[in-house]
Amino acid sequence: MLTRADSNTTDIAALMADMGARAKAASRPLAIASTAQKNAALLAMAEAIIDGCSDILAANDADMEAAGKADLTPAFKDRLKLTEERVHAMADGIRAIAGLPDPVGSVMAAWERPNGLRIERVRTPLGVIGVIYESRPNVTADAGALCLKAGNAVILRGGSDSANSSRAIHACLVSGLESAGLPADAVQLVPVTDRAAVGEMLAGLDGAIDVIVPRGGRGLVERVQNDARVPVFAHLEGLCHVYVDRSADIDMARSIAVNAKMRRTGICGAAETLLVDRAAADTHLAPILDALHGSGCEVRGDTNVCKLWPKAAPATEADWMTEYLGPLISVALVDGIDGAIRHIADYSSSHTEAVIAEDEAVVERFFNEVDSAILLHNASTQFADGGEFGMGAEIGIATGKMHARGPVGVEQLTSFKYRVHGTGQIRP
Amino acid sequence: MLTRADSNTTDIAALMADMGARAKAASRPLAIASTAQKNAALLAMAEAIIDGCSDILAANDADMEAAGKADLTPAFKDRLKLTEERVHAMADGIRAIAGLPDPVGSVMAAWERPNGLRIERVRTPLGVIGVIYESRPNVTADAGALCLKAGNAVILRGGSDSANSSRAIHACLVSGLESAGLPADAVQLVPVTDRAAVGEMLAGLDGAIDVIVPRGGRGLVERVQNDARVPVFAHLEGLCHVYVDRSADIDMARSIAVNAKMRRTGICGAAETLLVDRAAADTHLAPILDALHGSGCEVRGDTNVCKLWPKAAPATEADWMTEYLGPLISVALVDGIDGAIRHIADYSSSHTEAVIAEDEAVVERFFNEVDSAILLHNASTQFADGGEFGMGAEIGIATGKMHARGPVGVEQLTSFKYRVHGTGQIRP
Repeated sequence: MLTRADSNTTDIAALMADMGARAKAASRPLAIASTAQKNAALLAMAEAIIDGCSDILAANDADMEAAGKADLTPAFKDRLKLTEERVHAMADGIRAIAGLPDPVGSVMAAWERPNGLRIERVRTPLGVIGVIYESRPNVTADAGALCLKAGNAVILRGGSDSANSSRAIHACLVSGLESAGLPADAVQLVPVTDRAAVGEMLAGLDGAIDVIVPRGGRGLVERVQNDARVPVFAHLEGLCHVYVDRSADIDMARSIAVNAKMRRTGICGAAETLLVDRAAADTHLAPILDALHGSGCEVRGDTNVCKLWPKAAPATEADWMTEYLGPLISVALVDGIDGAIRHIADYSSSHTEAVIAEDEAVVERFFNEVDSAILLHNASTQFADGGEFGMGAEIGIATGKMHARGPVGVEQLTSFKYRVHGTGQIRP
Repeated sequence: MLTRADSNTTDIAALMADMGARAKAASRPLAIASTAQKNAALLAMAEAIIDGCSDILAANDADMEAAGKADLTPAFKDRLKLTEERVHAMADGIRAIAGLPDPVGSVMAAWERPNGLRIERVRTPLGVIGVIYESRPNVTADAGALCLKAGNAVILRGGSDSANSSRAIHACLVSGLESAGLPADAVQLVPVTDRAAVGEMLAGLDGAIDVIVPRGGRGLVERVQNDARVPVFAHLEGLCHVYVDRSADIDMARSIAVNAKMRRTGICGAAETLLVDRAAADTHLAPILDALHGSGCEVRGDTNVCKLWPKAAPATEADWMTEYLGPLISVALVDGIDGAIRHIADYSSSHTEAVIAEDEAVVERFFNEVDSAILLHNASTQFADGGEFGMGAEIGIATGKMHARGPVGVEQLTSFKYRVHGTGQIRP
């Protein structure tokens, strides 16, 4: 284990302050590194991971052995476990990030003023990103590579259960940086597992950290959101809704509802609540619920749903507020689009919602009036993903409204500045 | 005065929580209000201000009378003072905001995925803005109108010295909202002047406030930045630099330096430090300093500057860190563009910097490597202004890197969401 026997709060504070200062120093050359140099580092990282596969697997074995002795769920162990295939997938992910367009320096907007000044708004790196995650060792590679591509330094703080795996992967990232002539401090891994290190990161390391991205369960995200003194890109939960309008095609509604709920029930884009237009209760409700039930989903319904489809168990108020993350769905009848908008406003976590409808006026109201990060028409909520959006990779999904919203990819890890081109203009 | 004799902390907390809840409730209809309805409200506000001119001036007289008894600077009183002309300018400002394009609903980007999903990124309001300002009564009108245009509810907290003026102006804004059928709670003015009200706003009013914009002196901005638990759009100071390269046209450098420093010395875009390329010391330094001195500016220089131009007083380390906001400039010789970039990185407040040069390679390095919100080539730093950028109006200038940077206009007061158009797609 990496926890230092002699560590105490003062040590940790000093250690973390030093990491912050080094990240900030590294962020300057990184911000002006060329696209070619950053991509060379990324490709070298991928190669180092392939070359170091046996070391990474040996480190992971040590983590798995410790996990075997601890009281951890099979799902947790599966997230922790690396295989040769998973290590190669990690390298492929980094190569894919190398292939993305470089956001830094791209001109977002340009215009000219009557006095001849030409104004450009240009993407710049954010600076230093702090990533706090749990037991998935691959986050070390994904987050490190994404931050680098956007010209940011990153401080990674992985879970203690994956400490050996993360350290082995991190060594490959550093070797990639060094072989491309970039500072090793561009991607740092917190070398201790004390929780105090997280506290220091949340306080911002004396202004060094520009934004924090938590990756993990609700407990972690909640702590980060409550305690962080710097901006956070995160979602606490994905309480996603599918609304089936009276104008919906029944077959489409059925296939989308089943996919949205059951394709993978444990991801944030999985649907948790189905809202059915009261005017479509007789036609659409039973076919959809039969299909959900047939795919292994338990149904909890409001009074009317239970009356119309007796296999449903009665839902309580708590059900409308619960992210099941399992094969269970809550179902309510609502008064058309108005009722759907109201229910979503009351219960949604502002992550992702879908409307199934053929009536364009209904779709327009849904798109205008529902205030969630991602709204879909006639498509599954499980598309809520940076890869599916064509962003190449994401560091997470944000439900806040500031700066980044929805999938957080390389573009969302940038800021911007104005470049003003003059020919001697002075202000009258 | 508006301070309630019986107010106490509990009262204030309850009052503010209620304002927050009402702002949040108002933000929903506001977010989906049509452009026509918002513009009708803005034009009605302007008309109400013209119609209410004598009431506003009477209220301002009361504020001025109280100010006359207090120990306030002439500059402070000038900011507080309203005249018929200033009231008309306020109404004109609101009409100009009505004339701006509506950012809400505009499509920022659109693309299609191989599976046929069409993805749009669309501007949405942020929600509720808190504006905390000092004695300028016109901020009440400007900030209220800008927030409304972007579909946001706003809670305004003006300084106690302008309480009567702000209240009279606020009444006109509310009458404009009501005549257009928009909720009066869309623009609220905190009715008490207790400082505890500011504390409640900085805590976010139980999640109701999405962002805070402070308008005022360093003390106010510093308190807001230190204590706010919600995002802040602000700049603490504008420590702006002008770098004169060896390749600069001497006449242009002279005219820009004088304008950047002396046009108005009290604004955040005024230059505070002049950096001159050591290689141009013999040719460029004296003409520029002569012109600055001739325009009434005091010069403080480093050792070499004092040697070459003996009228300069010696600068100390503190001078490089001081925003004079007056007719005073610090001057240093630097080793070309490298030295300029280093000096700016060490001392700048990341607001606005200008490079005067004919050498395009120098300009490119300045634009790439200096990380401030606004960079200008061959133009005065005094152009750092939303109006000069063509944004129509600004609520302030931000030096943070998150969400808004540089002039904060209507677009920067928005967030976005993704609208995904499908035809039945489910995720494989």
